[in-house]
Amino acid sequence: MAENTPTRELSHVTTGGVLRMVDVSEKAVTRREAVASAEVAMRVDVLDALMADTLPKGDAIAAARLAGIMAAKRTGAVIPLCHPLDLDWVGIEFERLTDASGTATGRLVITCTCRATARTGVEMEALTGVSVAALTVYDMAKAGDRGITIGPIRLERKTGGRGGPYTRGAAADERTP
Amino acid sequence: MAENTPTRELSHVTTGGVLRMVDVSEKAVTRREAVASAEVAMRVDVLDALMADTLPKGDAIAAARLAGIMAAKRTGAVIPLCHPLDLDWVGIEFERLTDASGTATGRLVITCTCRATARTGVEMEALTGVSVAALTVYDMAKAGDRGITIGPIRLERKTGGRGGPYTRGAAADERTP
Amino acid sequence: MAENTPTRELSHVTTGGVLRMVDVSEKAVTRREAVASAEVAMRVDVLDALMADTLPKGDAIAAARLAGIMAAKRTGAVIPLCHPLDLDWVGIEFERLTDASGTATGRLVITCTCRATARTGVEMEALTGVSVAALTVYDMAKAGDRGITIGPIRLERKTGGRGGPYTRGAAADERTP
Amino acid sequence: MAENTPTRELSHVTTGGVLRMVDVSEKAVTRREAVASAEVAMRVDVLDALMADTLPKGDAIAAARLAGIMAAKRTGAVIPLCHPLDLDWVGIEFERLTDASGTATGRLVITCTCRATARTGVEMEALTGVSVAALTVYDMAKAGDRGITIGPIRLERKTGGRGGPYTRGAAADERTP
Amino acid sequence: MAENTPTRELSHVTTGGVLRMVDVSEKAVTRREAVASAEVAMRVDVLDALMADTLPKGDAIAAARLAGIMAAKRTGAVIPLCHPLDLDWVGIEFERLTDASGTATGRLVITCTCRATARTGVEMEALTGVSVAALTVYDMAKAGDRGITIGPIRLERKTGGRGGPYTRGAAADERTP
Amino acid sequence: MAENTPTRELSHVTTGGVLRMVDVSEKAVTRREAVASAEVAMRVDVLDALMADTLPKGDAIAAARLAGIMAAKRTGAVIPLCHPLDLDWVGIEFERLTDASGTATGRLVITCTCRATARTGVEMEALTGVSVAALTVYDMAKAGDRGITIGPIRLERKTGGRGGPYTRGAAADERTP
Repeated sequence: MAENTPTRELSHVTTGGVLRMVDVSEKAVTRREAVASAEVAMRVDVLDALMADTLPKGDAIAAARLAGIMAAKRTGAVIPLCHPLDLDWVGIEFERLTDASGTATGRLVITCTCRATARTGVEMEALTGVSVAALTVYDMAKAGDRGITIGPIRLERKTGGRGGPYTRGAAADERTP
Repeated sequence: MAENTPTRELSHVTTGGVLRMVDVSEKAVTRREAVASAEVAMRVDVLDALMADTLPKGDAIAAARLAGIMAAKRTGAVIPLCHPLDLDWVGIEFERLTDASGTATGRLVITCTCRATARTGVEMEALTGVSVAALTVYDMAKAGDRGITIGPIRLERKTGGRGGPYTRGAAADERTP
Repeated sequence: MAENTPTRELSHVTTGGVLRMVDVSEKAVTRREAVASAEVAMRVDVLDALMADTLPKGDAIAAARLAGIMAAKRTGAVIPLCHPLDLDWVGIEFERLTDASGTATGRLVITCTCRATARTGVEMEALTGVSVAALTVYDMAKAGDRGITIGPIRLERKTGGRGGPYTRGAAADERTP
Repeated sequence: MAENTPTRELSHVTTGGVLRMVDVSEKAVTRREAVASAEVAMRVDVLDALMADTLPKGDAIAAARLAGIMAAKRTGAVIPLCHPLDLDWVGIEFERLTDASGTATGRLVITCTCRATARTGVEMEALTGVSVAALTVYDMAKAGDRGITIGPIRLERKTGGRGGPYTRGAAADERTP
Repeated sequence: MAENTPTRELSHVTTGGVLRMVDVSEKAVTRREAVASAEVAMRVDVLDALMADTLPKGDAIAAARLAGIMAAKRTGAVIPLCHPLDLDWVGIEFERLTDASGTATGRLVITCTCRATARTGVEMEALTGVSVAALTVYDMAKAGDRGITIGPIRLERKTGGRGGPYTRGAAADERTP
Repeated sequence: MAENTPTRELSHVTTGGVLRMVDVSEKAVTRREAVASAEVAMRVDVLDALMADTLPKGDAIAAARLAGIMAAKRTGAVIPLCHPLDLDWVGIEFERLTDASGTATGRLVITCTCRATARTGVEMEALTGVSVAALTVYDMAKAGDRGITIGPIRLERKTGGRGGPYTRGAAADERTP
């Protein structure tokens, strides 16, 4: 399985410690898409209030969606060695999880999809978008629950790069704490 | 226990959905401190390479520390309803977890501490700092492992606010997915 | 009336053209508040769609409110000679105008209130907040009406400065195009 | 007339309220141009001082031009659902209006032209550029007149998009307050 | 002489390599001022054109002044371990050097003064302001001379810190390349 | 020699003072590369401490490298009339100078290389990257030496533009102060 094999790039590393961007000037401009997800866990009654738009700071879903989109667009200014690029699209979705009996839980799953026509992949954009959306949910809901937890945050799938498409499988789940 | 009791603020919410900042003009300027943590889980050999500074993009710890500090300083520009404030200090630490036998695992815990002399708490700054540090580790290490997972991200403790000090306890852990 | 009298500052200007910030280091830190308004005029059916949340880009009011708040917080980074300051509060409200018979028109009035404990006034923050909120409404609604017009944008009132409180009166209206 | 006909996009809206960017990944990269204008009205003697470079903060025209250009370049970071794009050119012009007898008035018209080779139009860039230029004029002149008014701000013309060229006509003027 | 003696702070360093901000939460809020200078050297005829406002990109002095002021205000967002703070004033001045016979040379000296009421000094703000002003002069003039050189950039003086006032003396000059 | 001949652009300038961006919409998209250098001079023992990672703020080289890369990516947001563009690569290198006898001096030379596939050159990006890297070294080392001097900062070479390749020669050195 691809993710258990050291990459050729990694095995070729000979010098240590020098921070460097990857030079993408020789890479082809192709359609890129990446999807990342983040889970936010809070008390059930607080997520009830969040879904009902009765939190002190207001509509958490709208705020989180906008903040995530805006952050995804500025990823290259926040992640030091990430290439700046102009995204064609950012979409953010929210889904409340239910338990086996169909009862609403305190767990909210946020998904961020990014698309670009670029020389490099957009997984950092999707991961940054979903992380800032989750932090915004936290900020909106923290007056109701100081023990909110964010995670796991992970890449769900990506397409368009030289390395072929990737979809998260069982092996990755084993690494989840 | 404080975190299981609905806050007075939350119970007073009567209108729905309107996004609003909290007005802090009447609050006292006091010393504030908050500590947040994030865990990053990856393949053991990739975390070995990261700790040994042999990743393709270079010294992940230095990059993550700087990116987290810079992000914490700009939290008010990223989280929509968060107050802008001038931090007195940001510190970010990294610790690799070992298993019961003392063997190094693929799990890295990042801790961010923020201090300010301000009218509002700095937990969003600590959470943003630790999240961006974790995303930067992801970016530095992703060539070696596409299944890296971030989380849980959570507030460890805070002091200095009107609501009294907070330290994360067992109840919060139960909410962790 | 105050606004028809040249200020002492203006009459003392002797040099020409050199861009300069006002030195506020000798000014007192006081509570400051400013309120600005902006009107956005569009076709009635498009404002109907905007109020009903059925525009192609979604909830324009939520987007405009957040964008305006975020812009107000970053005013010092956008207006060249404006002092950076940490706002205590930003609030943005929306009101649809009706005509003499009580029928809803295509005119939306946006109001932005800013508060700070600072050495300088916050009118530029309120004006920037309301302008970016109006531009965001424009962006959300432009697929439905390419002739949307923004304005007048003006200061409604301010308090807390050395120059005493200000409330917009009839004289100012005469300057409106 | 095009602007009185509901767009196809608008008529297809079926869901409500969900904020979304437009996906431009399937759109062609073409030359885009947009021109927007903003009027700023102030006391005649203050605009005299502004044109003569004797305002307390200095050369308002130079400051407004630079601030407008810089803001136009960062539009995608300010307007939440606007696509980031690299502008090929931004130009900002200023014209003082005269009355019927040829006498200089207190009204200044600012025009911003933006050009890009992109998948999406640049009208928001032109509108943002002209708005920030107007706000900067306001900031430079406000010590002389607290009743300055900005508006109307509107799109004058655009070319290069799928929807064909647009020039502002009489119908749009009727919507001006 | 103070600058030839290793500081106590430096001699106390025992750990290596860990990036850290200085914690200023225990420091007193005092008036701080710093002055930095930068020299820009170009062909005499190009500096003639720059002073006469006939460069292709226009008024280089106005552009450099504004860019320097705006950059000084955002220093904490650019220099990784620098504390964010709200400046009370930024001033930037320009002086063309003459040779022994009083003839104008191709050397322009830029000076940036920053003031703040803060827990930490503002020398990085003054140095960043003067550096970006110099880079902007370079950008405005580079069509006329591709061999423009910036430097020396140095701190001229500072007041207000715990370490006492500092004025640049002869010893520092010896370090200039 | 090219750099002693007034450019055609400069000789065609007829209007004065109006700030303007260069319109690049008609220019070809080509591979661009630029290399800039900056020297930082400090006391020998302080540069010893910096190279040994024992400065109070930690690893100055890692911090300067990251800050320079991040600044180069955001050049279009800092230099007023500079075009925004997406860099393919930024690399920053550091070299300590030795004297004639091979002994290490207090002089550090920083080199920044930028690459892009764009309509305009990237020399401002390389110059901004190297300037911010030098300012960061200054910030990291200033507790040990308040007389640190930055400069000369200059363009070493560029390729890919309409005007042909450029390499810094002797004539440019004569302009160095």
